[in-house]
Amino acid sequence: MTEIEARWREYGERARAAATVLARTDGVIRNAGLREMAKGLLAAASAILEANGRDMGAAREHGLSRAMLDRLYLDERRVEEMAKGLLGVAELPDPIGQTVARWRRPNGLEIAQVRVPLGVIGMIYEARPNVTVDAAGLCLKTGNAVILRGGSEALESNRALVTVLREAMTRVGLPADAVQLLDDPGREAARALMRLSGYLDVLIPRGGAGLIQTVVENATVPTIETGVGNCHVYVDEGCDHEMAERIVINAKCQRPAVCNAMETLLVHEAEAPIFLPRIAAALQARGVEIRGCPRTRTFIPQAVPATEEDWATEYLDLILAVKVVASLDEALAHIARYGTKHSEAIVTRDYTRARRFLREVDAAAVYVNASTRFTDGFQFGFGAEIGISTQKLHARGPMGLEALTSVKYEICGDGQIRE
Amino acid sequence: MTEIEARWREYGERARAAATVLARTDGVIRNAGLREMAKGLLAAASAILEANGRDMGAAREHGLSRAMLDRLYLDERRVEEMAKGLLGVAELPDPIGQTVARWRRPNGLEIAQVRVPLGVIGMIYEARPNVTVDAAGLCLKTGNAVILRGGSEALESNRALVTVLREAMTRVGLPADAVQLLDDPGREAARALMRLSGYLDVLIPRGGAGLIQTVVENATVPTIETGVGNCHVYVDEGCDHEMAERIVINAKCQRPAVCNAMETLLVHEAEAPIFLPRIAAALQARGVEIRGCPRTRTFIPQAVPATEEDWATEYLDLILAVKVVASLDEALAHIARYGTKHSEAIVTRDYTRARRFLREVDAAAVYVNASTRFTDGFQFGFGAEIGISTQKLHARGPMGLEALTSVKYEICGDGQIRE
Repeated sequence: MTEIEARWREYGERARAAATVLARTDGVIRNAGLREMAKGLLAAASAILEANGRDMGAAREHGLSRAMLDRLYLDERRVEEMAKGLLGVAELPDPIGQTVARWRRPNGLEIAQVRVPLGVIGMIYEARPNVTVDAAGLCLKTGNAVILRGGSEALESNRALVTVLREAMTRVGLPADAVQLLDDPGREAARALMRLSGYLDVLIPRGGAGLIQTVVENATVPTIETGVGNCHVYVDEGCDHEMAERIVINAKCQRPAVCNAMETLLVHEAEAPIFLPRIAAALQARGVEIRGCPRTRTFIPQAVPATEEDWATEYLDLILAVKVVASLDEALAHIARYGTKHSEAIVTRDYTRARRFLREVDAAAVYVNASTRFTDGFQFGFGAEIGISTQKLHARGPMGLEALTSVKYEICGDGQIRE
Repeated sequence: MTEIEARWREYGERARAAATVLARTDGVIRNAGLREMAKGLLAAASAILEANGRDMGAAREHGLSRAMLDRLYLDERRVEEMAKGLLGVAELPDPIGQTVARWRRPNGLEIAQVRVPLGVIGMIYEARPNVTVDAAGLCLKTGNAVILRGGSEALESNRALVTVLREAMTRVGLPADAVQLLDDPGREAARALMRLSGYLDVLIPRGGAGLIQTVVENATVPTIETGVGNCHVYVDEGCDHEMAERIVINAKCQRPAVCNAMETLLVHEAEAPIFLPRIAAALQARGVEIRGCPRTRTFIPQAVPATEEDWATEYLDLILAVKVVASLDEALAHIARYGTKHSEAIVTRDYTRARRFLREVDAAAVYVNASTRFTDGFQFGFGAEIGISTQKLHARGPMGLEALTSVKYEICGDGQIRE
């Protein structure tokens, strides 16, 4: 065992002890903890901003990109938003203790399936300090202890935030160790966390494809893959071009850096001659670079030739791959080959093709006549989101509070034995 | 990539293709496949028994234990039972296509959460050839393709069985590759299967603690841990001794080699002087060896002294560890420390302690006044069982058909975009 493994085990032991206490609490006290956390953040805003200022200074020195700096940056409004987020989570219904199902067996045994916390949750994430508060809040709501491992750029901010969160826990009589921050943001430390079997009930990585891949390769603990989205919109034969334009522009441009943004547009060949020049003008007016297949380029001459790699790329940027297809079947085959099973949309007027698309596309969220950008816990009405699962086990698509829970069976008898 | 990795990828490709076809089938055709499989087994019984005879001959030569030989052995009755099992699965309600929830958002989007197959399931298991048929049947029922990797002792039997199952698939127009058997039962082959990321949606190991541990350590694909059960019965102060004896005997002796059998008995000190000599006599009459703590041995002088290791051991045999505890708290602490979160029981007359035990024990199944032996898909009324999950993610406790499914969101709109 390396030194860092031994240290993380201590974190794991403390988290387990805290989880045992949390599992026995009522929702009333956990909600009080959330409100106390919110109060604490507002009261400590200046200390938090000071710590964030140190992170920002170092980040500028290291030459971080504008986008990265924006994600790292905190101001009073952002601290207020974090506090508001916690208060919102406190208002949500408590999933813990819910009876999912209850039935009586012929021998008189009464079996109840009851919702319980997962136990100890690990979170590995990147620059944004608000994830620290979000994750801690959602884990407290669901009775879980959490071990947080944020990005090195945000270490000072995260330290300041976690100090506040832990003090809030103590003030309401809950164990501070329900929220722990790993103070070593190195790679070795992350890998050791991924291998903390016996301590972590689940590890949730939130970040880019590289982080997810590292976790899949290295983790021995159960994990939930999140967030990689190579999403498509298919513009079907005979569809409403005005609706198609609205959806394509929204799916690509409204917030291009997120996982539910569109990366490839598929257009039926019957619509291509009219629709492609139209959408090209609208996209280019918004600064979108188009990379097209040969047939696309006959209608959008200024498009860059798309390579095989383009079909597989999650740009997360104002770049769009465009392909003309001969049929719904070709569109489905393209999505099956290059999609990441996140969010896929068809724009159509045809009932049968809409039904086929819904049924045959294998993805967390499949849309007819709506933007892929709706794949989001808040947009789905969950009131919270811990991430978007792109795997099929445990949780799929936007993960709300239920994704942070498990179940157990409580069985009451009168001396029954098995014959 | 090693040669075996390349070969398993081909299996993976074929399984994926078959899964795509299966995902589009209706339950009617999948049930027809199950009935055809049952018919095929009965028709090919002599070829299956001949293959099993070769496995048995080799197993005897290799000096396998009586218990192992019994698990490997097939006769006409056992083949009939496998066929009957498939017909039973065909009769179960179809979980695929079920709408789990459906709601309308304020913007008019209609969101449906629909049950879908997981896709491709890997199964690693040991000697019993009936698991081959069971697993194939449950996977077909739930629209999943399966890659099977049975034990080397059962290779000939499994080959004969899988040939029959694949022929049955073809006869009803389903892809034979929905059921594939890895023809290399070596360790390297098993490890390569555990790392078949991108092809397996889940890997389910069924076997002893060693197999499960190997999977946890090596798998890069999502896995469901199953089956390790260090289960306890706690005999509470003031309980009904007759009921306690009945439950203890059942939990230990009815089938000691299975994961839901009791391994440690905890007895409240107030009951120990009367209950321990009584239960010792009943256990010893059934050939059970008792390993006791020092206080146990004052009441059962013939008990072997229990070591620290005994508290952590899943004997799967007619051996029982016994400990006297001073309180429910001590019992809970012992279970939290040594239990494997499988099945735990209290025998009590006290309402408050029953409630505390149900709530505070962290296990898949927690019993009041019933035997731990009920943790089983059939006993729970699921009509099927693919294994017993001892993890908290995705499925916990006995896994029926639902554990072999995922969900997806189908979203219907009228041109909605995100503001």
